[in-house]
Amino acid sequence: MNPQAVIITVGTELTDGRITDSNGPFLARDLEGRGVTVARVLSVPDAEGAIGWALTRAVELEPALVVVAGGLGPTADDLTAAALAGALGLETGVVPAAAAMVAAAGGGDSATLGPHQVKQATLPTGSLPLAPVGTAPGFIIFAGAAPVVVLPGVPLEMRQMWAEARSLPPIAGILDAASAPARRRLNFYGAGEPEVNAAVEALRQKYEVELEVSICARRREVLLEVAADHNHQPQVDELIDALMDRFKDTVYSEGDEIEEVVAGRLTGLGRTLAVGESCTGGMLGETVTRVPGASAFFLGGVVAYSNEVKRDLLKVRQETLDNVGAVSEPVAQQLALGVRALTGADYGAGITGVAGPSGGTPEKPVGLVFICVSSEEGDVVRGFNFPGSRDDIREYSVTAALHMLNRKIMDDEAAAAESAE
Amino acid sequence: MNPQAVIITVGTELTDGRITDSNGPFLARDLEGRGVTVARVLSVPDAEGAIGWALTRAVELEPALVVVAGGLGPTADDLTAAALAGALGLETGVVPAAAAMVAAAGGGDSATLGPHQVKQATLPTGSLPLAPVGTAPGFIIFAGAAPVVVLPGVPLEMRQMWAEARSLPPIAGILDAASAPARRRLNFYGAGEPEVNAAVEALRQKYEVELEVSICARRREVLLEVAADHNHQPQVDELIDALMDRFKDTVYSEGDEIEEVVAGRLTGLGRTLAVGESCTGGMLGETVTRVPGASAFFLGGVVAYSNEVKRDLLKVRQETLDNVGAVSEPVAQQLALGVRALTGADYGAGITGVAGPSGGTPEKPVGLVFICVSSEEGDVVRGFNFPGSRDDIREYSVTAALHMLNRKIMDDEAAAAESAE
Repeated sequence: MNPQAVIITVGTELTDGRITDSNGPFLARDLEGRGVTVARVLSVPDAEGAIGWALTRAVELEPALVVVAGGLGPTADDLTAAALAGALGLETGVVPAAAAMVAAAGGGDSATLGPHQVKQATLPTGSLPLAPVGTAPGFIIFAGAAPVVVLPGVPLEMRQMWAEARSLPPIAGILDAASAPARRRLNFYGAGEPEVNAAVEALRQKYEVELEVSICARRREVLLEVAADHNHQPQVDELIDALMDRFKDTVYSEGDEIEEVVAGRLTGLGRTLAVGESCTGGMLGETVTRVPGASAFFLGGVVAYSNEVKRDLLKVRQETLDNVGAVSEPVAQQLALGVRALTGADYGAGITGVAGPSGGTPEKPVGLVFICVSSEEGDVVRGFNFPGSRDDIREYSVTAALHMLNRKIMDDEAAAAESAE
Repeated sequence: MNPQAVIITVGTELTDGRITDSNGPFLARDLEGRGVTVARVLSVPDAEGAIGWALTRAVELEPALVVVAGGLGPTADDLTAAALAGALGLETGVVPAAAAMVAAAGGGDSATLGPHQVKQATLPTGSLPLAPVGTAPGFIIFAGAAPVVVLPGVPLEMRQMWAEARSLPPIAGILDAASAPARRRLNFYGAGEPEVNAAVEALRQKYEVELEVSICARRREVLLEVAADHNHQPQVDELIDALMDRFKDTVYSEGDEIEEVVAGRLTGLGRTLAVGESCTGGMLGETVTRVPGASAFFLGGVVAYSNEVKRDLLKVRQETLDNVGAVSEPVAQQLALGVRALTGADYGAGITGVAGPSGGTPEKPVGLVFICVSSEEGDVVRGFNFPGSRDDIREYSVTAALHMLNRKIMDDEAAAAESAE
């Protein structure tokens, strides 16, 4: 049984939906990777009652560790320190070590702190302060036996301070004792969630050990995770190997994102990529360049949003635009071919479609997208009818383009290997 | 006092950080916009105990409404219906209306349901089923007086089913009774969080009414929200007007994103934009085209990732690349000028920088970014040292470029108005 943690994220901007929390997922990934299971992620507004409630409820679960992010700023709505003190039955006061840290961060000394600085140095009695990355110190306080690590909400500051907190005795002790679980992941494209589930259910009967299976669908991809106690790695491996064999046409990675898979293949082969995008507006290039080191294979591309740019830069033919319109198979192909010709890339990808919400017609409804991937070995063009919002359609398009590209690179390699025989 | 809601999102992929939850923020924005305050967002793994715990804890808060998303799929780890029934002390069974819906969604009839379909039609006794968008029906069940709306986790299905659920009597009644609060937002760029906070604190003393103030920082922007009971709109308006006057150089919107502001200005003026991006790889184009109707002003651009593409497509001079390198003021300027010349756009934006994690040098460290915005009226170039990860640096760059563009458009208009006088 892995040690359990509860994550609490604080901020009215989280509970009213103005901001999508990234701290919770970051901390969850980090803890899970170290063998700590995240039992709950609780998001609460900037209100003393709500923050205190979250800590009380977290502690009732008897976790090994609680991590709180947010509400340490200088403003009146930053209430985390006072709320946690209240929930723990502690007083708050200026902690001298924290005052010194705040003063140092501000370039002054603790004798001359301004009111905001005093507020940021005011912590629950007995807190171990953590040096500020920006202006706010974090702190560690105990709720019974469980350390509560309290971090600022600014993601950059949170991540850096969390890295420091991890190395401190109370936290390091918990993390050292946690054994990373036996865990493997598989990502699928082209297989349905029920189909993957049925195969896993049939296979898991064979094992006496308890396997935790989690399956979810995302942008037409299926993500599977199988975890077990750390001494059951062989059983997890055997099950995963059987699935990889069974789904060899649809498994694309062991947890890596499709852009990482494509980046790895192209870099390994020393081949290059360029993109010609219309409705995705740059999202395909943006996604590919999320991968560090993308310059090894990615040359760039053209965002051909207007028909003039399609025609003038990527040599899409005016005749084609006139006859079949910008959202069509031939235009997708001309975008891919055009950007290859323009940049000299080995692979070109072209995307054209109706992302909506307006601009759809009965013949070309919102969600209609054509994608082409092109190489010297030939072109593949496909049409799609994607559901959902403008954002959904654009994300589906980029995901589909990357999967088509991945398949094309493999097919090209297989053909080359065959002709070499 | 607005009615309160609790949102529960279910999925191990959420609590282990594999996926960043988008359902919670979506539902939160929707509810808040209708005058319902979201008191908590609780994320729990696919485990009966955890899901039941969340409902029990939610109900203890005596909310007017609970919305649950996730865990209705066909797979063995989809446990929401059984867990909620357990927490409410109800049995589960095949609900005939749900069975008919599942059969209809599968194109068959209720007499011949497969095991997955039977599972999806098995709901807590007394549930009001909601017709499936994909394969899984949702349902509404009561926890005391509070309706609990249970939706699938696939965002597309969740959103469509939520729209339907909102129109049904128990939910519509709550939403109709909620008065949207008096609420105004201001977004700032170039003002610090403490500075905005101090101004708000000084101003709010004047009012006897209770004002809820929320301030947060995001990518060097500061987001402010002031809310009050719905009959206190005049006080909220007065405070916001005073702030707009005081911060007139740094307020850029009343809640709109900067890309929406830029899109509105360019569309209103009938002027056009093109982008020349290096380290952001397409993210500036992608961000601009998130705005529906972007084709009114956005022509497209070039993702000039390699030096060859910078040189061949955007006429960045080889001499400049040799002498000062790709990450430099003159290259940012040549990218912006080059893409304007290539597309004929009124405005050009160029971005070049070191996004990291590798590729930094002592002279040009990771985070060094140059941005230029160019128009017939002249060019503005700025250098930045952005902190953080590759993702952070790219996001900061795009945000900065959009704010520079916004400022430039305003300055150009002001200059034109002056010279016309």
